Amino acid sequence: MQQLIGKSIIGFQRGGSDSRPVHGVNAFTGAELTPAYFAATVAEVDCAAKLAGKAFDVYRFTPGKHKAAFLRKIAGNIEALGDDLITRASAETGLPAPRISAETARTCYQLRLFAELVEEGSWVDARIDRADRDRQPLPRPDVRSMLRSLGPVAVFCASNFPLAFSVAGGDTASALAAGNPVIVKAHHAHPGTAELVGTAVSAAVRDSDLPEGVFSLLFGSGAEIGTQLIKHPLVRAGGFTGSRAGGQALMKLAASRDEPIPFFAEMSSVNPIFILPDALREREEQIAAGLHASVTLGAGQFCTNPGLVFVPSKLSDGFVESLKTKMTGTPSFTMLSREIYSNYQKGISQLETHSAVERLDGSVSDANGAGCHAALFRTDANSFLAHPELATEVFGPSTLLVTYEHLDELLPIVRSLEGQLTATIHGTEAELKERYELFAILENRVGRIVCNGFPTGVEVCHSMVHGGPFPATSDGRSTSVGTRAALRFTRLVCYQDLADFLLPDELKNSNPLKIWRLVDGEWSNEKL
Amino acid sequence: MQQLIGKSIIGFQRGGSDSRPVHGVNAFTGAELTPAYFAATVAEVDCAAKLAGKAFDVYRFTPGKHKAAFLRKIAGNIEALGDDLITRASAETGLPAPRISAETARTCYQLRLFAELVEEGSWVDARIDRADRDRQPLPRPDVRSMLRSLGPVAVFCASNFPLAFSVAGGDTASALAAGNPVIVKAHHAHPGTAELVGTAVSAAVRDSDLPEGVFSLLFGSGAEIGTQLIKHPLVRAGGFTGSRAGGQALMKLAASRDEPIPFFAEMSSVNPIFILPDALREREEQIAAGLHASVTLGAGQFCTNPGLVFVPSKLSDGFVESLKTKMTGTPSFTMLSREIYSNYQKGISQLETHSAVERLDGSVSDANGAGCHAALFRTDANSFLAHPELATEVFGPSTLLVTYEHLDELLPIVRSLEGQLTATIHGTEAELKERYELFAILENRVGRIVCNGFPTGVEVCHSMVHGGPFPATSDGRSTSVGTRAALRFTRLVCYQDLADFLLPDELKNSNPLKIWRLVDGEWSNEKL
Repeated sequence: MQQLIGKSIIGFQRGGSDSRPVHGVNAFTGAELTPAYFAATVAEVDCAAKLAGKAFDVYRFTPGKHKAAFLRKIAGNIEALGDDLITRASAETGLPAPRISAETARTCYQLRLFAELVEEGSWVDARIDRADRDRQPLPRPDVRSMLRSLGPVAVFCASNFPLAFSVAGGDTASALAAGNPVIVKAHHAHPGTAELVGTAVSAAVRDSDLPEGVFSLLFGSGAEIGTQLIKHPLVRAGGFTGSRAGGQALMKLAASRDEPIPFFAEMSSVNPIFILPDALREREEQIAAGLHASVTLGAGQFCTNPGLVFVPSKLSDGFVESLKTKMTGTPSFTMLSREIYSNYQKGISQLETHSAVERLDGSVSDANGAGCHAALFRTDANSFLAHPELATEVFGPSTLLVTYEHLDELLPIVRSLEGQLTATIHGTEAELKERYELFAILENRVGRIVCNGFPTGVEVCHSMVHGGPFPATSDGRSTSVGTRAALRFTRLVCYQDLADFLLPDELKNSNPLKIWRLVDGEWSNEKL
Repeated sequence: MQQLIGKSIIGFQRGGSDSRPVHGVNAFTGAELTPAYFAATVAEVDCAAKLAGKAFDVYRFTPGKHKAAFLRKIAGNIEALGDDLITRASAETGLPAPRISAETARTCYQLRLFAELVEEGSWVDARIDRADRDRQPLPRPDVRSMLRSLGPVAVFCASNFPLAFSVAGGDTASALAAGNPVIVKAHHAHPGTAELVGTAVSAAVRDSDLPEGVFSLLFGSGAEIGTQLIKHPLVRAGGFTGSRAGGQALMKLAASRDEPIPFFAEMSSVNPIFILPDALREREEQIAAGLHASVTLGAGQFCTNPGLVFVPSKLSDGFVESLKTKMTGTPSFTMLSREIYSNYQKGISQLETHSAVERLDGSVSDANGAGCHAALFRTDANSFLAHPELATEVFGPSTLLVTYEHLDELLPIVRSLEGQLTATIHGTEAELKERYELFAILENRVGRIVCNGFPTGVEVCHSMVHGGPFPATSDGRSTSVGTRAALRFTRLVCYQDLADFLLPDELKNSNPLKIWRLVDGEWSNEKL
């Protein structure tokens, strides 16, 4: 069993124990877990940033194959943690072991997908426009360019994905793949999981002969450590998954630096689902079952959890009845932390006491208040439009049905929606054709549109977009899942009239990496 | 001759004449030019934004071929302005007619390059990951994604490129190509040029059967109109070329909106040149002539004008003598505006009176103070490091030689440099090999590295990067020149399990546009 020591990982060193320690908590029992965790000091944060700055000078020139081996080694080291990781992560998050196993597999798959990406190498968007020394009135120079790494990236772990959006999750994997050192701020709710994964990454840095500082892991308060990190002159970008309040505070810091930096925050979303009448007629029970599964998956603690469901009022009786039964019969959940549980209860009781909202499920709270119940609410389209607060995210296994009389009522609602990670439409082919306008308006409000499915389950692949207009994310042009996530942590660099030996391999005449390049406007994977 | 009326272009209407009018000024004579120009009112700015918002709903779905025809029509309409445009732009900017002709050609070439880009269509980074309904433990959905347009873009014209970075310049061309309506804020120093080009664009919108609001042109103060534009909820991005103060003020506004928007400002740069000893030995006269031409081109009023030149002190006598003669013998220039002239004189006199700086050229100011003279200054590396203010941009035909004793003195200087659009190294192959470290550090401070050439002359092509770390630009990850400029005004949208008929053409199985797509991880321009 891997020994946990409760101290930050600063390059190849461990942090001190000067600060007041905090403990992880067993989400199931509320009991304190050992060891105690010590916050990184101001000097330690500074040291991590300086090591990262120094490591960047080497790591930014590390070839794709070398980075790929490093990423695969991280994945292997995480897998080697085996049951220790599953047990600890499950205890700290209240998520069942099979979910943690699946998330670990996803995290390692993700690391290996980025390894493939950088090993193959074409992702850098290499472009070459050859010289024409005889052009009139002026000769044309040789111009080449590609994406280069940005510099040290600060990554903030999410509470709800202790593996996939944490220490070696999507932000870290994509930043490392793109050639940037990473400084991770652990989430206080799963410090042991963070330490286990952190030591796995740190060992991979060492074993891959990469310089100290390519990776550090800091424990401590988000407000303090996070602020210091984002303000640090050597930190060149940030990645964050979490609350809107936390994300926006860090966004503001990033923008108000003397030298502003890009900050990618994935914040909040209610992921509306629109069920059109014929689809409901045809697949009432199937949609109810799918929706129930999507709302309650992982105790509803997903960024893509569907919090709003629009259903035709005339046809909704059987659907509502079925969903009500399913929600009421759902066993109670242990939530990620007491704080999240109490926020969920607050959200639920705001809906429960709202004059325009009716609670449909028959759940009753546990006497001891520890179990979280799935909750089903209903309102109608007019009330929804009149009460914008009903579009607020309730983080947990709750959803609000919004009944509509006629499809035209949906258009002003869609137009009034804030930016979302996802939106989903259930409709027959004929309905979708007839209601293309709904689709067209919706497309402009979201990062991903799902048809006749459910938004939870974010596939890790080249085409995935886990993003969306503000406030779903801080920069709706990007994605934090899928291979394009690496593009966030790059910048363009151009080389004019450089001798071949000075050029990065990606841009050399001989195309030694055999990558796809845009040469004089045509895509080619040949040499020049 | 095209009739100028001095009023904003609000969609297909013209603005009113309620505000206090301002006049363009003949840069050569100081005489007021007719007509008077009336600032857009608050209501007119709002109207332009609303028209743009409405037009977006149509324009974002306009096929690439249609957008290409529109961009080509703009280019044709600008060319049809002929001598009227040349005469007016030359009078308003003091730039000689041949320069204006060349810039017009460049502007039209740029519009046509973007037309080619969107007509061909592969630029949208289309990706398809096909479903695997039998995958265990969960089926894999069909996921497809591509870049989509962002929404109305506010473009701020530059003073120094009345065509190429103004009404139909790079920001406008790239935003329109990407499928976004554009609202241009004219530069007050060349309103007539702006109106001529604005009517050319507006006519192209109409003749291309595009909706009103795809283009508007506003006259008036940057502080007022610019602020209102960047704060307007319907405006989704901004593009700017100009001063650091102006760019930073707008950056802050964009970041502090309720819904922050991306803002791309290209601001300031001193574009250092590093001359290594053997290169100077071999090509002393050639480098002196090239440098003189680069510093004085367009009266030095370029973002890429080289303002700092590092030369080996031991070898610099002949070089300095030659450059001195050339600079002293350079005829005086008319600058873009009185304001720019007076700022140049201020910058020159700050260097002239600086204790660590010596003025080398023998220029004397005109008695009437209207002519701007090329200026050559010298300091040494130690003084340069001790006086950071010497790295401040002086906008105009001035350059500061910094002599160094040994190449090692350059490393701390390069490390201390602010972000730059460009850096240039002159060196023999052996020198560049030996001094790779200089190159490597420099690469991290700039958007473009030039070898044995000069930074002025920004080629319009697929691989160009006209960008660079802050404060050269607001977002050092992007470029405002070259086809990648269109990427700034896009965002990713993902489609999961959509029926083929609902998908954009770019993502349909049949690949009707025959574009390159990343299908299951492999690039292909075939159908599925």
